[in-house]
Amino acid sequence: MAAPVKVYGPPLSTAVSRVLACLHEKDVEFQLVPVNMAQGEHKKPDYLKIQPFGQVPAFQDESITIFESRAICRYICDKYADKGNKNLYSTNPLVKASIEQWLEAESQSYNPPSSALVFQLAFAPLMNIKQDEELIKLNDQKLLKVLDIYDQRLESSRFLAGDEFTLADLSHLPNTHYLVSVGNRGEAFSSRKNVGRWWNEISSRDSWKKVVEMQKSK
Amino acid sequence: MAAPVKVYGPPLSTAVSRVLACLHEKDVEFQLVPVNMAQGEHKKPDYLKIQPFGQVPAFQDESITIFESRAICRYICDKYADKGNKNLYSTNPLVKASIEQWLEAESQSYNPPSSALVFQLAFAPLMNIKQDEELIKLNDQKLLKVLDIYDQRLESSRFLAGDEFTLADLSHLPNTHYLVSVGNRGEAFSSRKNVGRWWNEISSRDSWKKVVEMQKSK
Repeated sequence: MAAPVKVYGPPLSTAVSRVLACLHEKDVEFQLVPVNMAQGEHKKPDYLKIQPFGQVPAFQDESITIFESRAICRYICDKYADKGNKNLYSTNPLVKASIEQWLEAESQSYNPPSSALVFQLAFAPLMNIKQDEELIKLNDQKLLKVLDIYDQRLESSRFLAGDEFTLADLSHLPNTHYLVSVGNRGEAFSSRKNVGRWWNEISSRDSWKKVVEMQKSK
Repeated sequence: MAAPVKVYGPPLSTAVSRVLACLHEKDVEFQLVPVNMAQGEHKKPDYLKIQPFGQVPAFQDESITIFESRAICRYICDKYADKGNKNLYSTNPLVKASIEQWLEAESQSYNPPSSALVFQLAFAPLMNIKQDEELIKLNDQKLLKVLDIYDQRLESSRFLAGDEFTLADLSHLPNTHYLVSVGNRGEAFSSRKNVGRWWNEISSRDSWKKVVEMQKSK
């Protein structure tokens, strides 16, 4: 039996938890390798060899190492195509195009305001960093515009890419979880009928519940 | 013979030119559909049906429409796998993982500072928008840090993902072209030995030269 794949970094990191959710969906055994970020382990030479930007996560499977959470997720789905949730990253070209389209929408339109808000609302207080009110206001506005577009899309589609839960939906879980649970932004989601339904459905998946449990125990 | 694919948007847009470079590399016939952004055509209902965020490009191939330039590039490489440059998006799983990793590095680490600089240095003056000196300084610093990491990577690798020119390199062409040609940032590239070599090589490709010619004629 092959050794479990390795994920470097803490589950509290949004990018790490994106990869963990994917591994749970694909039913792939993994080992979590702690990276003590408070002690700067992510900036030390050994770690920089596998993640030259000094960020988490990094990922290892046999002899290959990969960084960037969305690239790691794609790799997991390709390599373990026959395991777990086979709809996550369909091999049907038209379905895959839709998954990539909404995965890129997450990366380019949803992530910039939501990750800025997650930092300001959830992490800055923990790090004794003063919150930037103007930045929060600006990114709240940007986020709501994106959610309006999502609400329209989810009027005619159960999930972002189509009828099935895919990597495109999964990729939204980490930031949205913090926005709703710590950032007091739940109403932005629940007040939009289709976005509210979608968020309830994707955040109730077993895969994500397992990640939230891992976050609590760290 | 199938109808040519359609690309909506002006070649001067960095995201549009990313798709055009990919089409040239893959030797796929296309038709450019003008979108008059000065007249707000990208915010009109007919256009929003295919690009709900009101951005360019949008893309059409037979019955499928796609938005987000990097998703469109992946689709073109998958659909036209047998045409043109077959190394652009390898189907070898290990090579593909490396392409995705560096394509995501472009998307998450290179694009944010470089697109902010392109807007400030190249587009703001054309639009009579005052340049934000502080933002320029901040993003120059971020860009240089990324280029240091790239220089290290390109010390041991001819291109970002490995021995071949791929989508990962291609995706850097549009922003970098403006930074060097209009933004007066050429030295940031040429002063780094490996980045300089890489930029000379990728910007000299016929595919990219054709895109630059299209930009000039518009």
